[in-house]
Amino acid sequence: MLIVLQQDVSKEAQERVLARVRELGFTPHAIEGAGRTAIGITGNKGAIDPGNFRLLEGVSDCIPVTVPYKLVSREVRHQDTIVNVAGVAVGGRELIVMAGPCAVESEQQILSCARGVAASGANILRGGAYKPRTSPYDFQGMKEKGLELLSLARAETGLKVVTEVKDTETLPAVAASADLIQIGARNMQNFSLLEAVGDLRQPVLLKRGMSATIKELLMAAEYIASRGNQQIILCERGIRTFETMTRNTLDLNAIPMLKSHSHLPVVVDPSHGIGIRSGVLPMARAAIAAGADGLIIEVHPDPDRALSDGMQSLTLPMFHELMREVSRIAEAMGRSMLPGPVPR
Amino acid sequence: MLIVLQQDVSKEAQERVLARVRELGFTPHAIEGAGRTAIGITGNKGAIDPGNFRLLEGVSDCIPVTVPYKLVSREVRHQDTIVNVAGVAVGGRELIVMAGPCAVESEQQILSCARGVAASGANILRGGAYKPRTSPYDFQGMKEKGLELLSLARAETGLKVVTEVKDTETLPAVAASADLIQIGARNMQNFSLLEAVGDLRQPVLLKRGMSATIKELLMAAEYIASRGNQQIILCERGIRTFETMTRNTLDLNAIPMLKSHSHLPVVVDPSHGIGIRSGVLPMARAAIAAGADGLIIEVHPDPDRALSDGMQSLTLPMFHELMREVSRIAEAMGRSMLPGPVPR
Amino acid sequence: MLIVLQQDVSKEAQERVLARVRELGFTPHAIEGAGRTAIGITGNKGAIDPGNFRLLEGVSDCIPVTVPYKLVSREVRHQDTIVNVAGVAVGGRELIVMAGPCAVESEQQILSCARGVAASGANILRGGAYKPRTSPYDFQGMKEKGLELLSLARAETGLKVVTEVKDTETLPAVAASADLIQIGARNMQNFSLLEAVGDLRQPVLLKRGMSATIKELLMAAEYIASRGNQQIILCERGIRTFETMTRNTLDLNAIPMLKSHSHLPVVVDPSHGIGIRSGVLPMARAAIAAGADGLIIEVHPDPDRALSDGMQSLTLPMFHELMREVSRIAEAMGRSMLPGPVPR
Amino acid sequence: MLIVLQQDVSKEAQERVLARVRELGFTPHAIEGAGRTAIGITGNKGAIDPGNFRLLEGVSDCIPVTVPYKLVSREVRHQDTIVNVAGVAVGGRELIVMAGPCAVESEQQILSCARGVAASGANILRGGAYKPRTSPYDFQGMKEKGLELLSLARAETGLKVVTEVKDTETLPAVAASADLIQIGARNMQNFSLLEAVGDLRQPVLLKRGMSATIKELLMAAEYIASRGNQQIILCERGIRTFETMTRNTLDLNAIPMLKSHSHLPVVVDPSHGIGIRSGVLPMARAAIAAGADGLIIEVHPDPDRALSDGMQSLTLPMFHELMREVSRIAEAMGRSMLPGPVPR
Repeated sequence: MLIVLQQDVSKEAQERVLARVRELGFTPHAIEGAGRTAIGITGNKGAIDPGNFRLLEGVSDCIPVTVPYKLVSREVRHQDTIVNVAGVAVGGRELIVMAGPCAVESEQQILSCARGVAASGANILRGGAYKPRTSPYDFQGMKEKGLELLSLARAETGLKVVTEVKDTETLPAVAASADLIQIGARNMQNFSLLEAVGDLRQPVLLKRGMSATIKELLMAAEYIASRGNQQIILCERGIRTFETMTRNTLDLNAIPMLKSHSHLPVVVDPSHGIGIRSGVLPMARAAIAAGADGLIIEVHPDPDRALSDGMQSLTLPMFHELMREVSRIAEAMGRSMLPGPVPR
Repeated sequence: MLIVLQQDVSKEAQERVLARVRELGFTPHAIEGAGRTAIGITGNKGAIDPGNFRLLEGVSDCIPVTVPYKLVSREVRHQDTIVNVAGVAVGGRELIVMAGPCAVESEQQILSCARGVAASGANILRGGAYKPRTSPYDFQGMKEKGLELLSLARAETGLKVVTEVKDTETLPAVAASADLIQIGARNMQNFSLLEAVGDLRQPVLLKRGMSATIKELLMAAEYIASRGNQQIILCERGIRTFETMTRNTLDLNAIPMLKSHSHLPVVVDPSHGIGIRSGVLPMARAAIAAGADGLIIEVHPDPDRALSDGMQSLTLPMFHELMREVSRIAEAMGRSMLPGPVPR
Repeated sequence: MLIVLQQDVSKEAQERVLARVRELGFTPHAIEGAGRTAIGITGNKGAIDPGNFRLLEGVSDCIPVTVPYKLVSREVRHQDTIVNVAGVAVGGRELIVMAGPCAVESEQQILSCARGVAASGANILRGGAYKPRTSPYDFQGMKEKGLELLSLARAETGLKVVTEVKDTETLPAVAASADLIQIGARNMQNFSLLEAVGDLRQPVLLKRGMSATIKELLMAAEYIASRGNQQIILCERGIRTFETMTRNTLDLNAIPMLKSHSHLPVVVDPSHGIGIRSGVLPMARAAIAAGADGLIIEVHPDPDRALSDGMQSLTLPMFHELMREVSRIAEAMGRSMLPGPVPR
Repeated sequence: MLIVLQQDVSKEAQERVLARVRELGFTPHAIEGAGRTAIGITGNKGAIDPGNFRLLEGVSDCIPVTVPYKLVSREVRHQDTIVNVAGVAVGGRELIVMAGPCAVESEQQILSCARGVAASGANILRGGAYKPRTSPYDFQGMKEKGLELLSLARAETGLKVVTEVKDTETLPAVAASADLIQIGARNMQNFSLLEAVGDLRQPVLLKRGMSATIKELLMAAEYIASRGNQQIILCERGIRTFETMTRNTLDLNAIPMLKSHSHLPVVVDPSHGIGIRSGVLPMARAAIAAGADGLIIEVHPDPDRALSDGMQSLTLPMFHELMREVSRIAEAMGRSMLPGPVPR
């Protein structure tokens, strides 16, 4: 923390600032400038609330210096974390792909989708059972029945399962069914839910909120890690900007930034990130080229009839082509695709 | 819904679009243009998912025409809703003011604050007992003890109490203590929590999410209303933009827009909206001049020592001045301040 | 400038940073913390480019401390600047209003508009002669003929004239006709144009760019002031955000912030700020309540037939009502409206 | 254009809307819905200003249907445009790379940089002679002398030259020296400058404004094309968002969107797009993987001592590594790097 004093600060006011720093148990360091004086603070364990100083007479500004996340920080742990999703290693040299429909809609739909994406080399099946929807009148998911169908699809294909948890009430059911528990973008700062998954010992896929900064995403991960669960995969899925031609603005800058600030694996969701079917494939390639550890892709056997997000879902042949092209980019990066489940 | 076809669409593709509209039970209306054809759809009850059409061959764009919220819409109910907060009427000719600290910190703090704001004419005491904080290492509130202290302050001053509910687990406790239940900005799209307060028959203060559009705020209110609870007060509290000099960008445009689209009362939180103490008073005046039905203001008896948000909290004398200036603006608007509780 | 070093910085790297500071002619001040060291820099005249240090080994971050604008800063000049627009004082206790059509369209249109707004008490007539338009196929203004018509309207009504300058080529013509030269939002960082108006000795209305920060607006004003022209009026006119229901997001937070950081007068354009006719009046009241020194309002005698911006233009009766309501807010603020020109 | 009427519109008001459409020379098409009526308009050549209808009694909304750009649209020209920059073909199967310092600083600097990037395979040398800077007190470029040094570097290395034009005054000098004229982000809506380069018959590099939508970028290109100059290369360079960890948010979504809406070539500037040296290489790879036709990269022989943008400039060895990695991505895409000039 650095406290910048006003140019015309009185000796008395400056003394009171120094006294307040000492009173809080910290050590003040005055830096006399030509025009201004600043006071550096040391001796603190965590971040200091600037509110302690901002309102004191003579204080012009307070500037934090250290980052507020620790456990998820690259400074604390240098080597990459590899998250183990029921045998699927996320964050290593091999890239992983999660694929499936926005929502589980029927046994026929989820099974045909699971078989199709497995055949193309996906590792993990995605599919929403509990759907947070902007309108109360929209389809809210098949709920418990949806979880059962995901388990059925896993049993048949060998794919692992990722599905979203909407609230703490349904967390036990989701945790019992899912290999990887997804926290959706709207829940990234639902701190009660973050704490609840932090108390589990199961891997978590944490999606960036649509107006969350990269730092806030890391703070949300810190919430989970601070309860003892460090099996966290970060997910960039697009942020909200002024641009209206695309559903969101996929922020691929986040990949090198997250990689340099944190040891956690990072995957990208280009389906929500651009929101337009024809853009998913180029953005999937771009995500891998930017250094992502994997992808999560919306695929639907019949997107024209999808109950949600049909506009951004790939058909099975389009997904097959995506896997082919992405694997060429992976090779160019000196990486490879983690093989999907062995057909039974 | 309007479906715009591509310029070079084939007769067959156009027929398939028409057939799809009819298959869904709606009526298509072709509009032949010089360069393009568009198809209007009627016969639908609610909004139609554009995903039904966007991926059909020959479709260039799908444009929704009707709004997706109903119960909270001015089209459905013309006259203003007045929400009754334990006897305090919000949304009528008289303006109401909620004031108090960001968080309840101690008996001494909340009582001296409550007495002070009551003496200046506030109607409702604010104070967080459960605090959602960006960092897991920050002060998380006094919880049940905080609720007790708010009740104590109410008993002593006659002020009504508004406090935030963080999750469904603590909702029963909050609902039992609060006269007005606050849904914070980060929970505006926590649909499980919206449904839970929708099942109550108690007034709700719904804050706009920091990246929520005005329409999404109305959709969140619709979630609550669709469960039978229409006692909802909307709150503008600033949105996230590229501007960094202020904490948020207070979007006062939202007031006339909400007022014209909805019958619900609207209050403004200038404390979070600008985030800098010296700016709270001018923005409070501006909110009233824009047509708000009330204010929610952070006040702390000793902001320098506040455990959170000290930087934007007013002192008691500053709040007194704010009430004086705001009441002059109210008069200029042909409105007046609802008198605070009668001293006991 | 504060240089924050990495936790594990070597003694040698730290020495090299100190040497670099000295080499540039400044004085380094090391602040040793428990975990980190920071280096404060003094002795500089203006802002130091962080690029000088950010790439040195061992440097974690560079934080600027002083603001980069000077002449327009409240630190340099404490009392408010009053800009004299051909006898109309902007920035004093009395509020001023500029009103008129988006574009000059015909003699009949500009004269009837000028007479109408003068009758309601406006001080300055606005009207575009050179129009920057997003599409090359849209109406680009009447150009020289438009300037002549503005002069005609001034002669007849006594109103002063503000009109936009689009480029340096047409600046001499605009400067010869206008009492107040407007730099539009899209030209806020057209530095060649800023320098050219800075070389004049005529008042300038500088509109905030739609994605410009408050600090960048002040830097643009500094460009003009640095050439010797300090007759600058700042104008908030809405910024670009994710909100789509309104044309822009009027950032009234900018008013108290500009007022505290600068001595220049500030006016508000609620017409562009909300972009919807029914919202202009409430936002005009709000702007004055927030502390603005005046307004600029789009008014058209027949908005349905306006060639541009009809959707946000007021009719003459609506403008009359706006003046009435705004003057009541002004009184509540202890200010008053500067009387318009005496009818001839 | 589609005009949506209010639910309770009177027969008379509806007739007046139809009459207004006919009066303007267009053909109205009424679509009667269950709850509402809408009116489609045909017979128009270009876009219709919604202002013609929005204020009529009974009108609820006006929705434009056709896009306002034509010459640059993929609908008008299906095959890709290839821009010829003095023999370097941009927009074909082969990718091109522009590289060099932010600003020309000295003969020694620009020559050593040009030699270095040419040796690594760049095709075009970048370097600012006229620099638009946010502060009037910052280095503004070497101006004419800078242009001379760029020509010298071209003569020595065979690289083509791209440099920014800041205003119409200096356009003749820039056009005489440059092979490719750059319009910077801040000038993307400087319509006078767009028209001036539109009157030339020389290739233009048009950078996206930092808050410009994709559609506005295409409209700016349309300005140039409408004057007869269709030799335009579009450039994505990052947009302004709420994210503060990076300088801008590189919007790679823009690549597939621009490619599907326009026939013009698209290049990416990852240096400004992320603003942090360590992120430039991954974002360069991502840009190519997303389908860009080339890159523009800031390179400085000694970035620590750069007069501007040192923080995001690559060293020559880093640029060499970038070329190596990008060419592997290009191969994976079935493309290749256009070879640089043959050494003399």
